[in-house]
Amino acid sequence: MSERLVPTDRTRLRRRAQRGDFDVATIHAIVDDAYVAHVGFVVDGAPRVLPMTYARVGDALYLHGAAANAMLRAAAGTEVCVTITLLDGLVLARAALKHSMNYRSVVVFGTASTVEDGIEKRAALDAIVEHSVPGRATVARPPTAAEVHTTLVLRVPITEASAKVRTGGPNDDDADLDHAVWAGHVPLRLVPGAPVPDERMRARELVPPAPDTLAR
Amino acid sequence: MSERLVPTDRTRLRRRAQRGDFDVATIHAIVDDAYVAHVGFVVDGAPRVLPMTYARVGDALYLHGAAANAMLRAAAGTEVCVTITLLDGLVLARAALKHSMNYRSVVVFGTASTVEDGIEKRAALDAIVEHSVPGRATVARPPTAAEVHTTLVLRVPITEASAKVRTGGPNDDDADLDHAVWAGHVPLRLVPGAPVPDERMRARELVPPAPDTLAR
Repeated sequence: MSERLVPTDRTRLRRRAQRGDFDVATIHAIVDDAYVAHVGFVVDGAPRVLPMTYARVGDALYLHGAAANAMLRAAAGTEVCVTITLLDGLVLARAALKHSMNYRSVVVFGTASTVEDGIEKRAALDAIVEHSVPGRATVARPPTAAEVHTTLVLRVPITEASAKVRTGGPNDDDADLDHAVWAGHVPLRLVPGAPVPDERMRARELVPPAPDTLAR
Repeated sequence: MSERLVPTDRTRLRRRAQRGDFDVATIHAIVDDAYVAHVGFVVDGAPRVLPMTYARVGDALYLHGAAANAMLRAAAGTEVCVTITLLDGLVLARAALKHSMNYRSVVVFGTASTVEDGIEKRAALDAIVEHSVPGRATVARPPTAAEVHTTLVLRVPITEASAKVRTGGPNDDDADLDHAVWAGHVPLRLVPGAPVPDERMRARELVPPAPDTLAR
């Protein structure tokens, strides 16, 4: 049997519970497939939501930014809500209010701890580079001690979390089936374009990363 | 001269200010181009971030959901932070910590007011349908009074807001230019696939919406 997280009051979905999922493999797969997380935290009692890159290592989510970034420092040590959403399609129903989106999303609740341990911090930074382009951390110029020092890394455990997935076509009521309009869904996919070399690149023979490593 | 919003403490970007933008046309264009907003609010002192569909009408952002949705009801009347992000590409630098993403994002701070006025509410619901597929509100089966009644619509003014845009290649330091690795950026684009008709569609001759109206 696959591993499942324990639901809590805030991860237990109150509506459309069939879309909720506490399966760890499902949650990890969604986290690994996306590029951007929306990180919510509270500053002076008011909400803030920042889009951030990230990586997962085991059951931890790592965020990073400049240590001088006041917003990131404000989030450190506080409770955060990290929401990761992959848009998979548009759902066109017959009834206006039945229109929807197909998506996979994960919500993680937890405290964002500052990573102090040097080995964990370095591994997290490597993972963040690897997350956007697999294999990239081994070929990029590694971070210097000074760069690591001026970077803030936050860890959020993926223990209080849930996934929500919608797939397929519209859920129109039977009474609407004769409404004469096209109904169905339109898949959407994030597709990589041709790589654009940096103008300052000196070794022109270098080849860009393979497209199949991009836009998972 | 184009209209600009007045920066506040929380919309004035503290870092990389050149990416900040208070130009109303820029903010509106980003809002109009995306499909999903991440809506942050505070429940019992803790942050929550929900992915939601939305629409813009003038300088107002409209959100909606079932009136029975406890989470949406919790956000009504409270201060929210709505962040909308379009991922435009992966930036591959020579230095590991210079890797980045190209993106366009907007952050809106404001109070989410419940829309009580029937005409404004109906216009907002139409706009949300139109936002995902232009022209769709005129062909879909319109909402009934009962459906409108059981739907909660929230309005957030787009007055305290800012845009942030990153484009182009990596910003490596001169000292890293000889590091022999491919550097540049890879554009990412959300692309619609072939429309999938609903299995229950009875009038098979109906044509799906034109692809150029999808995935702006």
